[in-house]
Amino acid sequence: MQQVDTVIHARWVIPVESNAQEPSGQALDCHAVIIDHGRIEAIVPSDEARQLYQSDEIVELVNHALIPGLINAHTHVAMNLFRGIADDLPLLAWLNQHVWPAEQKWVDKNFVHDGSMLAIAEMLRGGTTCFNDMYFFPDITAQAAISAGIRCSLGLIMIDFPTIWAQNADEYLSKGIAVHDEFKSAPLISTAFAPHSPYTVSDEPLTKIRTYADELDIPIHMHIHETADEITQAINHNGKRPLQRLYELDLLTPRLLAAHMTQLSHDEITLCAEQGVHIVHCPESNLKLASGFCPVARLLNAGANIAIGTDSAASNNDLDMFGEMRSAALLAKGVANDASALPAAQALYCATMGGAKALAMDNEIGSLRVGKAADITAVDLSTLETQPVFDPVSHLVYCAGRHQVSDVWVKGRRLLNQRQLIQMDVAAIAQRCQQWQEKILANQV
Amino acid sequence: MQQVDTVIHARWVIPVESNAQEPSGQALDCHAVIIDHGRIEAIVPSDEARQLYQSDEIVELVNHALIPGLINAHTHVAMNLFRGIADDLPLLAWLNQHVWPAEQKWVDKNFVHDGSMLAIAEMLRGGTTCFNDMYFFPDITAQAAISAGIRCSLGLIMIDFPTIWAQNADEYLSKGIAVHDEFKSAPLISTAFAPHSPYTVSDEPLTKIRTYADELDIPIHMHIHETADEITQAINHNGKRPLQRLYELDLLTPRLLAAHMTQLSHDEITLCAEQGVHIVHCPESNLKLASGFCPVARLLNAGANIAIGTDSAASNNDLDMFGEMRSAALLAKGVANDASALPAAQALYCATMGGAKALAMDNEIGSLRVGKAADITAVDLSTLETQPVFDPVSHLVYCAGRHQVSDVWVKGRRLLNQRQLIQMDVAAIAQRCQQWQEKILANQV
Repeated sequence: MQQVDTVIHARWVIPVESNAQEPSGQALDCHAVIIDHGRIEAIVPSDEARQLYQSDEIVELVNHALIPGLINAHTHVAMNLFRGIADDLPLLAWLNQHVWPAEQKWVDKNFVHDGSMLAIAEMLRGGTTCFNDMYFFPDITAQAAISAGIRCSLGLIMIDFPTIWAQNADEYLSKGIAVHDEFKSAPLISTAFAPHSPYTVSDEPLTKIRTYADELDIPIHMHIHETADEITQAINHNGKRPLQRLYELDLLTPRLLAAHMTQLSHDEITLCAEQGVHIVHCPESNLKLASGFCPVARLLNAGANIAIGTDSAASNNDLDMFGEMRSAALLAKGVANDASALPAAQALYCATMGGAKALAMDNEIGSLRVGKAADITAVDLSTLETQPVFDPVSHLVYCAGRHQVSDVWVKGRRLLNQRQLIQMDVAAIAQRCQQWQEKILANQV
Repeated sequence: MQQVDTVIHARWVIPVESNAQEPSGQALDCHAVIIDHGRIEAIVPSDEARQLYQSDEIVELVNHALIPGLINAHTHVAMNLFRGIADDLPLLAWLNQHVWPAEQKWVDKNFVHDGSMLAIAEMLRGGTTCFNDMYFFPDITAQAAISAGIRCSLGLIMIDFPTIWAQNADEYLSKGIAVHDEFKSAPLISTAFAPHSPYTVSDEPLTKIRTYADELDIPIHMHIHETADEITQAINHNGKRPLQRLYELDLLTPRLLAAHMTQLSHDEITLCAEQGVHIVHCPESNLKLASGFCPVARLLNAGANIAIGTDSAASNNDLDMFGEMRSAALLAKGVANDASALPAAQALYCATMGGAKALAMDNEIGSLRVGKAADITAVDLSTLETQPVFDPVSHLVYCAGRHQVSDVWVKGRRLLNQRQLIQMDVAAIAQRCQQWQEKILANQV
């Protein structure tokens, strides 16, 4: 018998990816995932696993589905401390009158640390093993991610106006590159340039980012075509739609993660698909801010890759990828006027492989495949709310809640054990959060 | 000190209704709800309650919000046994090729009993204290509801074609009236006529229902304008839209609960509001079946009352009123292109008072008001996923999950105690559900 680090027996193993078909929707009955040195060594029927492998850590999940760890492809995690600070407002009023003033007042290194820890705890408890972030002090968020053991793509933020993080384009760029250098040997940390949006970043820094992204071989993560206002203002200002401007700046490439994308003409859908732009769909944020509807079914039909993101807890108001998968699957049908749009298996694919592809990490994560990192989420489907079970993939998307996540592994390391975060000091996180709440509330009065 | 049955101290009491404003969005800090003989005796600051009332049952909910029990205004609860049986299909294919054949094969008294028990357990665990149902064997569902202690409006179903429940219109009507008579003295059971839809019930039985509803003084519950196909077929068949036909049959009155209502002209919105028709909005079912978008904001602006329903677990795929409130609040903004549409307080109002008004029970339930029945749901907001708290009403709608429901009372009787269903045999429910799953799966192969 072969000695391995971990054997997880599960009622179902849902690999998400198979050679035969993507997304496969396949659920392997009573299989085991074998983990060694942080990687998936094998996926075999449980009976066979009991013959072939011995391990000091054998986990029996008799009512559970194992899925690839969910990838939250668009976050601003530190903003978890602003959860629910302003609701029921349109994007520009929400940004100008609430979020940006609150950020000016409160955001510093401590805020980013405490907000990031709160968000990471929330994400791990909800089955998310990797997030793609965009915020100030990415180095602080990286330290939080490293201490917690979660995988993270750090946004190297760029914005035309001065903030607590940097004063001008050159400083944003140099601080971003310094962060990239600082964390380039951290095994679970990667970086992406994060120019905020077409309407907040001018051509010159975008051109520099284009060059540096190639040089460092990292993605570019940007809010694009989030609202109709953004398009109107761009036409008034530049005489062209933002995607046209980005195309002329040679930014529409497979390096680009375009978050939101609710305003797309037929030609823009074709263009983005042809150029290999990755779409990060944020259905709940787009609904809540009445930003518009991302044409998910049409993008998929055109061949585009779709990832899913929650956006920040200030706009969503949570980092719940189960909720977001469901909202994506439901909304796509309504928007396409077609109940077969974004079926369950495809929604799960977007929330896992879609994110991995967008981050150019699909050789490492995004599916349960031999050789990939063991980033795994276990979901208990035995609660009354998910009975009976005719198809576990349907249940994961259409009726399971994130509280049914029992266990989470990142690169083979167990971070959630029967709902307990074993690497994080939850009481300390809650206490810091409480202190921020009191400070912010006292200031509002 | 006054002796009372129960005192519940809570971090927040959210009455939903106030004289000053509806919906109020008010959250009373550190208040207590005093219950006696099944009714709300008083709502006072906790300090005052400790001076004035003594009780053998004092419940301390230091991190919780108390809200009126949620009212699920459109269900087919027995169908919980078909949860997830067929997904990603349009309404007519889903009905004709999957749901109706499955019903023909499986539905009998035992099925309705076991499905109802599963659904009632799910609803109570999710903070729902009242449901408005439409299905075969309503007497069996009533028995399940009575045994569990939940409040229920029973649908007296009518449909043109023969089913296991009845052979023709006269039999549907007489069996319905017999069910009404059987349960008229059951304190938590009411009835409503439930003609399935305009496209499955002809004029004659509708006219009779109109008369009998007045005579028995009960509501009429019907699927109306659920899909565009329904409108097209009605025009081809009758030369008029279904709402026009129902108007001519004098059915558009405050007795009518119109479920779905995704296809509404400007004039129809005005007409329904003027006639006092209650709209039962089912956002997730409408999305999943790509039925269309109910114009919630426009209906509210016209003065219509909106209730919220999950529809069945075969189409949703759960009976989660927290999820449904959130979907309603989010979707209304997207559909109205207005982020201020259906704010959190109004969504909570629709899920409580809206349902109570639709069922003509707003003097009895729907808000926490002195004299009303003590139908109360407690929600724990202390989990990391709902921290920090700036506004508890926002959190209830935008980020709390139904698993945060800790305790539920119906007419003063505690049915959920720290997540445990104390009146129901959960193991037996799960076992029967498992047996049905095996039978149905064996037949599918």
